[in-house]
This record gives sequence, structure tokens and C-alpha cells, in this order.
Amino acid sequence: MFIHNKRLMYTVRVAEPNPGLATLMLEQFGGPQGELAAAMRYFTQALGEEDAGRKDMLLDIATEELSHLEVIGSIVAMLNRGVKGELAEGAMEEADLYMSLNAGGESHTTSILYGGAPALVNSAGVPWTAAYVDSIGDPACDLRSNIAAESRAKIVYERLINVTDDAGIKDALTFLMTREVAHQKSFEKALYAIEPNFPPGKIPGHPDFADKYYSLSQGEGEARGPWNEGEQWEFVDEREEQSAVDGGDGTAAVGLSAKETKAVDAFATRTASNPDSNPVTGADLGAGPGAGKTTKLES
Amino acid sequence: MFIHNKRLMYTVRVAEPNPGLATLMLEQFGGPQGELAAAMRYFTQALGEEDAGRKDMLLDIATEELSHLEVIGSIVAMLNRGVKGELAEGAMEEADLYMSLNAGGESHTTSILYGGAPALVNSAGVPWTAAYVDSIGDPACDLRSNIAAESRAKIVYERLINVTDDAGIKDALTFLMTREVAHQKSFEKALYAIEPNFPPGKIPGHPDFADKYYSLSQGEGEARGPWNEGEQWEFVDEREEQSAVDGGDGTAAVGLSAKETKAVDAFATRTASNPDSNPVTGADLGAGPGAGKTTKLES
Amino acid sequence: MFIHNKRLMYTVRVAEPNPGLATLMLEQFGGPQGELAAAMRYFTQALGEEDAGRKDMLLDIATEELSHLEVIGSIVAMLNRGVKGELAEGAMEEADLYMSLNAGGESHTTSILYGGAPALVNSAGVPWTAAYVDSIGDPACDLRSNIAAESRAKIVYERLINVTDDAGIKDALTFLMTREVAHQKSFEKALYAIEPNFPPGKIPGHPDFADKYYSLSQGEGEARGPWNEGEQWEFVDEREEQSAVDGGDGTAAVGLSAKETKAVDAFATRTASNPDSNPVTGADLGAGPGAGKTTKLES
Amino acid sequence: MFIHNKRLMYTVRVAEPNPGLATLMLEQFGGPQGELAAAMRYFTQALGEEDAGRKDMLLDIATEELSHLEVIGSIVAMLNRGVKGELAEGAMEEADLYMSLNAGGESHTTSILYGGAPALVNSAGVPWTAAYVDSIGDPACDLRSNIAAESRAKIVYERLINVTDDAGIKDALTFLMTREVAHQKSFEKALYAIEPNFPPGKIPGHPDFADKYYSLSQGEGEARGPWNEGEQWEFVDEREEQSAVDGGDGTAAVGLSAKETKAVDAFATRTASNPDSNPVTGADLGAGPGAGKTTKLES
Amino acid sequence: MFIHNKRLMYTVRVAEPNPGLATLMLEQFGGPQGELAAAMRYFTQALGEEDAGRKDMLLDIATEELSHLEVIGSIVAMLNRGVKGELAEGAMEEADLYMSLNAGGESHTTSILYGGAPALVNSAGVPWTAAYVDSIGDPACDLRSNIAAESRAKIVYERLINVTDDAGIKDALTFLMTREVAHQKSFEKALYAIEPNFPPGKIPGHPDFADKYYSLSQGEGEARGPWNEGEQWEFVDEREEQSAVDGGDGTAAVGLSAKETKAVDAFATRTASNPDSNPVTGADLGAGPGAGKTTKLES
Amino acid sequence: MFIHNKRLMYTVRVAEPNPGLATLMLEQFGGPQGELAAAMRYFTQALGEEDAGRKDMLLDIATEELSHLEVIGSIVAMLNRGVKGELAEGAMEEADLYMSLNAGGESHTTSILYGGAPALVNSAGVPWTAAYVDSIGDPACDLRSNIAAESRAKIVYERLINVTDDAGIKDALTFLMTREVAHQKSFEKALYAIEPNFPPGKIPGHPDFADKYYSLSQGEGEARGPWNEGEQWEFVDEREEQSAVDGGDGTAAVGLSAKETKAVDAFATRTASNPDSNPVTGADLGAGPGAGKTTKLES
Repeated sequence: MFIHNKRLMYTVRVAEPNPGLATLMLEQFGGPQGELAAAMRYFTQALGEEDAGRKDMLLDIATEELSHLEVIGSIVAMLNRGVKGELAEGAMEEADLYMSLNAGGESHTTSILYGGAPALVNSAGVPWTAAYVDSIGDPACDLRSNIAAESRAKIVYERLINVTDDAGIKDALTFLMTREVAHQKSFEKALYAIEPNFPPGKIPGHPDFADKYYSLSQGEGEARGPWNEGEQWEFVDEREEQSAVDGGDGTAAVGLSAKETKAVDAFATRTASNPDSNPVTGADLGAGPGAGKTTKLES
Repeated sequence: MFIHNKRLMYTVRVAEPNPGLATLMLEQFGGPQGELAAAMRYFTQALGEEDAGRKDMLLDIATEELSHLEVIGSIVAMLNRGVKGELAEGAMEEADLYMSLNAGGESHTTSILYGGAPALVNSAGVPWTAAYVDSIGDPACDLRSNIAAESRAKIVYERLINVTDDAGIKDALTFLMTREVAHQKSFEKALYAIEPNFPPGKIPGHPDFADKYYSLSQGEGEARGPWNEGEQWEFVDEREEQSAVDGGDGTAAVGLSAKETKAVDAFATRTASNPDSNPVTGADLGAGPGAGKTTKLES
Repeated sequence: MFIHNKRLMYTVRVAEPNPGLATLMLEQFGGPQGELAAAMRYFTQALGEEDAGRKDMLLDIATEELSHLEVIGSIVAMLNRGVKGELAEGAMEEADLYMSLNAGGESHTTSILYGGAPALVNSAGVPWTAAYVDSIGDPACDLRSNIAAESRAKIVYERLINVTDDAGIKDALTFLMTREVAHQKSFEKALYAIEPNFPPGKIPGHPDFADKYYSLSQGEGEARGPWNEGEQWEFVDEREEQSAVDGGDGTAAVGLSAKETKAVDAFATRTASNPDSNPVTGADLGAGPGAGKTTKLES
Repeated sequence: MFIHNKRLMYTVRVAEPNPGLATLMLEQFGGPQGELAAAMRYFTQALGEEDAGRKDMLLDIATEELSHLEVIGSIVAMLNRGVKGELAEGAMEEADLYMSLNAGGESHTTSILYGGAPALVNSAGVPWTAAYVDSIGDPACDLRSNIAAESRAKIVYERLINVTDDAGIKDALTFLMTREVAHQKSFEKALYAIEPNFPPGKIPGHPDFADKYYSLSQGEGEARGPWNEGEQWEFVDEREEQSAVDGGDGTAAVGLSAKETKAVDAFATRTASNPDSNPVTGADLGAGPGAGKTTKLES
Repeated sequence: MFIHNKRLMYTVRVAEPNPGLATLMLEQFGGPQGELAAAMRYFTQALGEEDAGRKDMLLDIATEELSHLEVIGSIVAMLNRGVKGELAEGAMEEADLYMSLNAGGESHTTSILYGGAPALVNSAGVPWTAAYVDSIGDPACDLRSNIAAESRAKIVYERLINVTDDAGIKDALTFLMTREVAHQKSFEKALYAIEPNFPPGKIPGHPDFADKYYSLSQGEGEARGPWNEGEQWEFVDEREEQSAVDGGDGTAAVGLSAKETKAVDAFATRTASNPDSNPVTGADLGAGPGAGKTTKLES
Repeated sequence: MFIHNKRLMYTVRVAEPNPGLATLMLEQFGGPQGELAAAMRYFTQALGEEDAGRKDMLLDIATEELSHLEVIGSIVAMLNRGVKGELAEGAMEEADLYMSLNAGGESHTTSILYGGAPALVNSAGVPWTAAYVDSIGDPACDLRSNIAAESRAKIVYERLINVTDDAGIKDALTFLMTREVAHQKSFEKALYAIEPNFPPGKIPGHPDFADKYYSLSQGEGEARGPWNEGEQWEFVDEREEQSAVDGGDGTAAVGLSAKETKAVDAFATRTASNPDSNPVTGADLGAGPGAGKTTKLES
């Protein structure tokens, strides 16, 4: 179970309110690469985990991410604390309040809809969705997903650091950014402590297709590199060898019963196009009497 | 630009219609780990890519994923071809059609709403969303995301293979699964061809926090492993050392102007709770005259 | 900050796996009335709260809801533990696995996509969204929202209790349900400890409209009750008195500049309908030569 | 303004409850082709409409669609009325209630989450979204969208009629279906009463590209028809003539300032791939010591 | 299957970066009327199509739309290329970077979250969803949907052309806009090549309701036109003739079993309102001691 | 059924167009606390309501909310009427139009995508979703949800009033705000006319847990108040008494069959982590040759 300590994991000191900056910070509160996504990713993985070591690690890090969520949310709350009071109390002329709502980013929405309170939306005001969590219940996959997620969160923090000169915020963001690096390291260790871990799962790849690299994009700009050359690869750039690679005819078919065939045929007949017609169309009608060739009526 | 060859990349042979199985297959058509997600992931990355080699690779693989989307979509179309005709033509008694709609999975929705045509939804009928695409415009992150995505797609294909005994479908799924393994290999090579690639980005982690492992989840079940022990790690399990790790007081504060302070104070006063009241509440009223202690009215 | 104790808040004992029942339980894991919604509702309110008492209460209860999320998630994990292993290992014949995936509810999706791991979706497979969280940063509103949310969560637990005879699950659900009642009581006390709290906000209602009840739905079935009769109400059922209640003409107008007027006029003229035409339409064309009156071509 | 008459537009007589069938009906209540989508489509168009005739028509039909929403919602309410009472009252053994929840479709969700009340979701339980409304504020487009929407709604009703033998439901669905046909006729008339209406908007197409048909999909199965042959068309099937059709080189470029160039170059250099490396990758590490060629470590 | 030619379908020349303009262009990349929606609309229709001619056409145009997606995405990439480098490299003072992020539109989100790479969101930052695709598996409907979609896309391009004076962008947008007109023409021809195509489907409308126009919105502003007058229409404006048009009583009813009746009655009784009460409410409590009539406590 | 009167419920007079303000107003048109949410909330509740009095009230208020939706939508239409014409007609220089699109809020999206017509999105451009409607088919819950919803809508109107000095808009918003207060009063009366109404539902809470208050958040800042002290409460702040409150061991377990056990064991073994390994990881590889301790390769 979770318990809570009123001390933040990292002290938050914000120089002055700035609702425009607050909306940028929401990216790591309610955005796809943010702390709720991280916390829920690891927490839900932990619940279904069979390995004691990974379960412990996932709970450790999930709990830390919740604590980070509290840090970043506190930054948002501090940055919005001025507009929150002023809007609720109607403490300024309407025109001045209107201006302050349009300070940048989505501060108009965070003010009008959320009253300056931290909301689980990203910097564009899009509500957080569990569609951001890509766990699938396989540890060798979920750990890779976690590694990637930590690397992404690191970069978004780096971008936020680059756009604020508030020293207190910069410090807190640097802490949060650094922890993502540490977490990535943990997940990497956990992945490689599964031996083997590649390819994930039980069913081996089909040997005919496992080493092929299909060069499907051709023209000026093609390039080679370790991802498509070297002894691990068979490079396929002949167009003929790229389609119907099973050796079949490249069509799709299904065995229908007599009754099904009859119904499908009826449907096909009823909705058949007449290739030899040249029908007057709605566009022809709509083009008006003065229309030229492109919409001419065939009588 | 894209061009199209009418031959599928892999021939599709489906033994007989099965709308319940069709809805499972939708997971790889319009689901989060499916082929549209893969294609859009790599295609959009390619557009913003500065490195010629990666751009070429991303376009090659994006194009292949589109071709896979066509294969899995063709499987869905074949599996639904019977119900499509029968429902459109009203070819069966109502009760029989009703039964056939409830064959399993979300076949009721794929029949009534989509008429048996492949739709970009997952196996639960949830529409595909670009929230599934986690690219952020940094190659060292995006490649890690791609590696993870390929591993997940591999496993979902493996699960689908495990639940069908239709030989033609099994073959096609095995091809698709194998290609995910090959793509993972390519993305791995491309990641490690960036030197160095860890941590991603430019700003280094803060040395005070980069090597710490905070053991936040404690009690029976704790475990150690390479993710939290060894020379790369400083293990922190003292509760006191886990909060306010910056050495501050663990609170959040902001510098407000006099005017802001006044507005915030007014708001706080107006909405203050009276801790010494013991008010009658709506729950007290609603518990009714016979209610016991838990809802008793304090007069 | 959050810390974690490996002991659950309530011990989970599940008699046997049942993936169909598991999907029903997801309603309180990743559904709109579930524990994540509750936890995030209170946690985000706490971050922006100015009142010390309410902030403490919100953190207490948010933390408890996270602990509940762990309990309900553990129930889901246990109920899915069989299918998780069997599907991952391909431990059964394909047809048997296929049947087990279609055990009820959305178990096909939770198996194929999530591999039996608890996912933040509701019982229909819809991902959790922060659109479920209706906090707006005003305590007199947010507390009412919390009261309502707790009452809803209570009922959904009651429904789940009604559909399972697994004693261990029933016990845990009863605990969770009871706590929602206790939380509602706390939020009620906190609401009424704000004096006054109705109407919320600062701006008073307009006296002309504050006591009126507009009986807009008329016909057999009309009824009176304390919500529209008694001394608090002025009952308005004359149709004439229900529209343009400001005494104006009930139209909408805006002052346009000359330049704007010109542009709007140009747009209106360009897209004007000709009321005196009786044009042949696409529907007329499409009805075919044998069509009767409803689609007859006007020559 | 809207007013309400307690008589339904069409009397609803349902023979007996059937929660599985109820979920299918939801498709026209809260689904993409359903009555809420229709009502909102026309109502919001009316608000911005400059033409008096169309505005009147849009309000007439929007109001009717709201009345249809009431009819289809009443059907859902009646079909769920049994399970609603039984679940709320716990009127059956748990196992029996559990079975009744899994009667078909998404009846498990409509029962557990919505208690049998009509909810604005489709037959898969996906909440209604305004993303279904495709109005863009141009009458020649919006009318075409309305025509298409009415045709789709007609077909979904037809499918529902095909799967129920409840005479009362069939009657009501036939009424609703017929009205969609009538509405399509009105929207067709209104479209063609704009003269001309094709192409929509003010800016003409570029003559070089307006009549060309690019045959981008080639191979066995190509076909000709009025959509790509006849005097309105110039058929382009030479691959060379299909790309860079402006006569340029088919690349993308932007003019960067010196400062921007420097930043982009720095980014490109920092994240460049080394095409001549053959790096050991995570996949190589993960494949384990026994791995063969595909994952062999290059030392 | 798809293959790729590195030459764009139309050469992209952007004069200089402009992240604000880039976010407007996203409307046609990841917005509801954009190229991904178009491509997926036609591609998924093609997969389930029974008519050879339409299938070929749908694949031709789907492939072209993918190629358009690449053109518009390349424009976005070029417009963002400056900010992408500068933010990633931290190449400017924080305050300057902050300003550049707030250049207009959602450029703050496209910079912070997506790093300037093209993302599948619309101009407000809302992720693309397959809810935008309205195909239902009936050709006479789907073609109408396609016609409408092309007309909408034409207009959105026209608006974008109206707000940029970058000649290279204007050229490319004009090409894309023109192609939508050409596609609409193709879909029109294909629709009218189905004979008959109106009304879609098999079940005829009910003759009692097919020709009626219900004038449900009344008052000043009513108008007549071909959509509600002429020989195709019976105009119904008597309020009495607009409800319960089947001649019934306009109520909703269901046949319940004795057991169901008992459960429903129990539920109704338990939750009945007492119309003769005048209860003290939470609002009464909350209005405080000084409250007047509207919230007076009834003792 | 619904009918429509062309007179608005409240006359709309807008001084001059302002697309930035228009987007703020969208919050009450297509936002979570807006009029569509209100109307749909009450309308769908009415359909499933068994109590005649509540059903009448819900239809009265639902109908009024639809009429409010028309008022607020008309305000939006008026505020956008200038830009709508100017953009459609291309009536200004491109640069001027571009500026007018970026007037504030999401006016860029409402102009480019919706052409200035009112759209069912909130002030951030997020489409309305039925996920905002929290009805669950239990009157004692749904009335509480309605009370809370009305209080929230009141406050959002108050905020909008605070940011505009257009007298006509202010008047209309004041009317709309006032009506929310009146509606809250009605719902309060209706709730307390159910006797008893707390706790909702039939199943009583478990006496062991109904009166406990778990003080889970501890540290400086703890506070007491009527929500956790007084005779209704048992205050639990001993950490030991907060976990495994059932007296069990706080673990989760399930009874697996032999076959299930075997599968789970196989899965666990196959994916086990080796806690004693210290594997070289991808991060180690990626840190490059010069990396220090944190990423050092263990040979």
C-alpha cells in the first residue's frame, strides 16, 4: 500500500508566477511522457509481475514517479497561484484578466476551465489517456518500453530546462531529469538479467524472413549502414522479390460456404459499378451551366 | 512518394469466415501495437530526420509496415466476408443473424457499425489514436521507442498465432511476426551506430542523483539485483534520506507580488474551512431519522 | 512524497481464475468510477489547495485510493493469472485457447493485448482518460464533485458484489465499498465546514432568474414536487414566458465593421440558396429511371 | 429555444427485455452514425448559418433528430429495464446475475457501469465524441457531409432491422430509417439550390492537375471506369510522370538563417549515425551465448 | 503492397522557418480533414470492396493521399527545422527560446513534446483518431462520405492558402487542393455508376414517412425552399401531427416477466421521491444563516 | 419529443467580433462543464428514470440546457462572424489574416478547421466526449452528480463574466450562470425527497471500516477538522494499523489448477531475472568508451 510523507521529494522554489510557463510544465504532469504515465506504467506492470526482483524494482520506481508527479504538479500550482486568486476573486479589470489568460501556451484553458489548479492534461490541453501506457504483460517487452519511456522523459525535461531561467525550477527539473537517466539504467539491467531476452517470447522467427532487409524506398538518398548491411543481413532490393514473398500469387482469398457465396454475390451484384456508364453526377450538376470540360454533362 | 503493387507482400489464404477471430486480428490492424501504429511511427520520424542513413531506413520500414497493414487487413476482410454479405442482404432469419453477430469478441460492433469491413479499431472496438505514437523528434529516443514497439508487436503476433489453427492465417502471422524481429534488429543497429547514445540529449545528469537507487517500496518481498546493486548504484533505503533530497524543507513556495498575495488571501479566506465546526451535512440529512452513529445529526 | 509498504491495505484471496470476471473488475481499476479516477481527483486537488485542513484530508484520501487501486488491481491480476500463463506459453490447443479468450466481457482484449496484466481500461476496454476527472479548482465545487464521485463508486462496487460468489473477492469489494461511504462522509463535512458554501463563488445570481422553474417539458406525465413547488419557486409554464426571458426579441446579433460586413455579405451571397429553384439532385439521379414520386426528376 | 412534448415522436413497444440487443441499439444512440451525432451536426451548423432557408431547415431537422434520440434511447431503456432492476436489487443469485450480464454485446458494461440506463456510447462501449461531427462551416461542404451522414444512418438502421424480430422495435426502427432517407432528400435539395456548388469554395483548381487521374496502384486487377476514363480525365500511368509532378526535383528544402543552420548542423552532428560501424547491440547482447548468425556479436 | 520512391509527389520549397504556421499546416497532416484521414478512409474501404473497379480506384487514390501526407508533412518539417535545432541544442538564451515556443498556434506543444518533428495531431494538438473515418462498409454510403470528405479537404486547403504568402508553400497547397477536387469527381462518377444508388441499401422506406417534412422549428424566420416544398414533399406544421406519428399514445413500454416486475418495483419504491416533502437540503444548509428565501430552512 | 421556437431563451447582443474571446466561450459550449454535457446528462437520466416526478424534472431541465446551448453557441457564432467571412472570402492580405487567426486562445483552430462556426470543442480545441457524463443509473448518485455539475458550471460562467466587458455578453452569461444555481436547488430538493438517500444503494457498509479515518499522509502540515474528528470518526494514524486492515498478511493469492500452475511456472522460469548477474546493457554500450562509473562495462 502507499503512504505519504508531506515533505516533497525535492523542494520547490518558484521565483514568480507565470501561467504560460505553467502550461509547458503540464507536459510532464499530464502529458504522454510525463510522470503519471511513468508511475502508471510501472505500477500496473508490478501488479502482474511473477519475478520477485522485478516486482520490487517496479514498485520502487513507480512510487518514485508518483513522488515526481507531486513535484512537477507543485511547480505548476506555484506558477498558477497568482492567476488563480485573481480570476476567482475578479481582482482585476476584465480586460486585464483577459490579457493575463492569454499569457502563452494554453493558459486560457488552465485558467477558465481548471481555475489554475494542476490538471492532468498536456501542454496543449489534451487530457491524459491510458493509451499512453504501452505495457503488454511480457517482461522482455515491457522493460524495453520502460527504457524507451525513460529516455523520452529525459529529453522533454531537457527541453523544459532550456526554456526557463527560474533557478528553482531549473534545479527541480534537473533532479527529475537525472532520475529518468537512473531509472533507464535500472531497466536496462533488469532487461539483460533475463537471459536470453531476444527475440522476446517463445516462437522463433521464420528463417526465410528473419535476416532479410527489404529496401522498399528507392531513389536518390538511399544509404547503407549496419541496419541493412553486414553478415546479419540479406539485402533485397529487386522489386520482384519484395512482393508475394511466400511464393504465392499475392492475392487474398477465403473459403465460403454455398450460402455465404450466395449472399456475397447478391451484395456484389446489387452494388456493382457499371464501368461502361458515363453518368451525370452531382458534381456535374453542381458545376453549373457555365462549367467547362471538367464537369460537362454527358447527355 | 508511395506507389502500390496489387500483389500483397504475403499471400492470404483463409480457410473459412470467422467474425470472432476477425476481431482479434484487429488488434494488429487498428490496435496500439498494430501495423498502422508502426507505419505512422516510422513514417513521421523519417520526415523530420536529419541523418540520411536513418531516413532511408525509416522509409524502408514504414513502407513495409504499410504493406503489412494491407496483409492483416486482408485477413480481417476475408474472415468477415460471410457475415458482411449475409447482414447486408438480410439473408438469414433475424434470430440467426443476431446469433452470428455475437460470435465472439466485438463481432457485434464490426458487423453493425462497420458492416464487416476492416476498421481501424482494436479488438475491443476502440478507435486507433495517434496517442499510440510516442515519437518525440530525438533519434536516440525514437530508436529506443521503435525497438520496444517492435518487441511488443512480435508478442501480440505470437499470441494470435497461439489461438488459431487456420494454417493460412498462421503462416501469414508468422511472416509478420518474423519481420518485427528483423525490424527490431535494424533499429538496434541504428541506435548503436550513434556514438555515444546514452544518456540521450545534451545535458548531463546531476551527479548527486545519477547513481542513487531509492528503495521506496519496503516490506516483505524486497529483493536486490543488478538494477540496484553493484558499483553503479548507491542504495538508499533510509526513509529520512528519501525525501527533500536537495537538503531543503520539502515544501513548495512561490514569490507573489503584493497584489497577487492579496487576491490569494481573499480567495483563501472566502473558501476557508472551519476546523472547529461540526456541521450537519447532506449525508447527515440523507441518512434519515433512523440512522445510527455514522450519520447522526449534531444539533 | 509517496512511499510504499509491500503489504496490501486489504488481503486478496481469489478462489480461482476467471478472466471474464476480471474484466468486470477493471471497471474499478481503469473505469470512470474507479480508483485511479478517485486518486487523481483528490491528489491534483490537494496540489492547488490553499486550506491546510482540506489539503491534508485530500492527501490522506488520495493516498488511500492509490492503495485501493493496488487492491483491485491485484484481484484482476489473480483472476487473469491462469490465462496469462497459458497464452504466453501456448500451453493449450489453439481452439481451447480461443475459447478461453472468449470467456466473457472483454477477456479477449485483456488477453491478446495486455497478456492478462491489469490495464487501465474499463470493462469495455476503453482506456482511462483524465476527462473523467472533473475538478475545477474551486473547493465548494470540487467537494461536491467528490461527494458525487464517492457515491457512484459505492454503487459500482455494490453491483460487482452482486455478481460474484467468490468469498475472498466479496470481502475485499465490501471493504472498498465501505471506504467510499466513509470518504463521502469526510467530503460532506469538509464542504459544510465552508460557511457559506452555496451558491459557490462570489457573483450572486440575478434575482429575476434565481427562483424560476421553467416547465419546458409538457404533456401527460407532468408532476410537481419540492424541486418546483413551494415558496422557493416561481413556476413558469406559459410558453410565452419561457422564451426571450430578458424581454428582448430573442435574436442574436453582433456589431460588424464595414469591412467585416462586406466580407460576410460576400460569403452569404456566394453560398446563398435559391429558394425558388427545384433542382435535380444527386438523389434524383441516383434513384434510377424507375423511381416514383419521391425522387422524380424535375425537367 | 427548445421545448418538449412528453409524447414521443413514435410510440415504443418492446416485447421483452434483452440487454444484448440493447447494446446493439446503442449504435444509433451514442455511436458515430447515431442520432446525437445527427442532431449536433445540424444544430451547430444552424448556429453559424447565414442563409435563412438553410438555417430554418437545419433547425427543423436537428430538432427531429433530438426527438429520434429520445425514441432510440427509450428502446434501450425498455430493453434494459429488467436487468436494471435485478442488478440494483440483487434480486438473483450471483451466478445468475453474472450470466445475465454476459448476455451478448457489451451488456456487461452497460449493466455494471451504467446500471442499465441508456449511455452515450456505441455498441462497443466507446463514449460518443464530437470528433464524429465533421462540419467545417462551409455550406457546400456541410450539406455534402449531411447527405453522406444520412445515408450511413439509413444503413445502420437497416442492419438493426435485420437482426431483431421484435415487431414493435422493428416498426420504430423502420420509422427512424425512413426519416433518414427523407432528410437526405432535403439536404440534396439544399445543396443543389446553391448554384454553382462545385467545386466548393472560391479558389479554382490548378488546371495542370484538375483532370489527371494518377494510376498509382498497378498490377493484376487494374480496371477502368467513368472515374478514370472519358473526356473528363487524363490517365497517368507512367511511373516517371507520377512523381515530382511540378517538374522539380521532388525534394524538400527550407531557407535557414546562419544561426539556424548552425544549430541544425550541431544537432545533426551530435546525433549522426556511423554507417561504417557494426556495433554490438542490445539485441546482440540479449540473444544469448547460443545465438546464431542473426544476433552474433561482432567483436 | 506499397513501395516508395524517394521523390516527393510535389517539390517542397519553404522560404523560411515559421513554427506558428507549421501548426496550422498540421490540420492537413493529423487533423480530421487531413491526408491521413483520407488515406486511411480509402485504403480500408479498398480492403473490403467486392467491386474490382472501385477497389482499383480506392487503392489508386489511397496511395496518392499517402503521398500527399508526405508532402504536407515535409512542409511541417521544414517550417519547424529552425526551432528543432535551436531547442535541442539549447542554442539560445532561455527567454529567447521561450518566446520562440510561443510564436503562435500550438508551437509550444510541437516544440516541447514533439521536438519540431511532424506529429499526427491537428492544429490544436489533438491526436488523430480513427473516429474521423466514417466508412461503414456499404459502397453507396462510403462513396458519399468520400465525396463529402474531399469537399471539406478542399476548403481547409483554401483557408491555408489564404493565410500564407510563402510562394513555395502556396504552390504545394494549391496542388494538394486541386487533387481533392479531382478525387471528388472520381468518387462522384463511381457513385453514379451504381444504378440505382438511392436510397442506399435494400429495405425501402415506409411510405407513410418518406415524403413528410416536419416543420419542428417555428417562429419568425421560417422559410420554404425545395427541401420542404414541391411535389416531393408533404409539409407538416401542425404540432399535433408531429408527435406520436404512428397513431399510438407516444409512450414507451416493455413486457416484463413477473420476476422482473417485482425487481423493478422494488427499485422504484426504494428510490421513490416524496413529492409532498419539502426537505431541508444541502443547499439550504450551505446558504448560511443569513440566506434569504431561496435557501430558507423549513423547520 | 422536442420542438423548437426560433426565439432564443435569452437575447444575444454582442458588441463586436472577437475570435479570441469566442474560444473561451467554447468552454461552455463543448467543454466538460458546458451546456451539452448538462443537457445530455439530464436527458439520458430521464430516459431510464422510474420516478414520475424526477423524470418530469429531468426533462424540464434537459430541455432548458439545450436552450442554453443555443444561447452560448449564438454568442460564439457572433464573436466569430467577422473572421468567418474574411477567411472564407480571402478578404485580407495573407499576413493580416494570419495575424487575425492568432488573436488568442485557439482561434487559429476554430478558424482554419471550423471556419468560425461553433464547434463542440472546449477552449483548448478538445472535442466533447461523453466521458464527461458520469451518470450511472442510480438516482441518489445521479442527483449528487447533477448538483456537483451545476456548481461547476456556475463557477465557469463566473470566470467568463470576469474576463469580458461586453455588456450584452455579460448579461447573457449572468442569466446562464443564475440558472445553474436554480437547477442546483432543484436537484438538491429532489435528492432529499428520497428518504433515506445515504448511503446510496442497498448494501450497508462493513461496520469495521465505516467510521475509520486513515491518516495516510503524515508530516508537518497535518490538520484535524470535522472530516476526521468528532464522534463519527475513529482516527487511525498508526502505520501498523493502516495496512492489511483485515488482519491478514496483506498479500494477493489465487487458487490455480495444476495445469495453470504449470503454465505460470513455465512463464516465470522463462522470463526470470538473474539477480546475481551484472550484465552489460544497452546503456553500457551506448555510453561510449569514455563513460565513467555510471555506465562502466563490467567484463
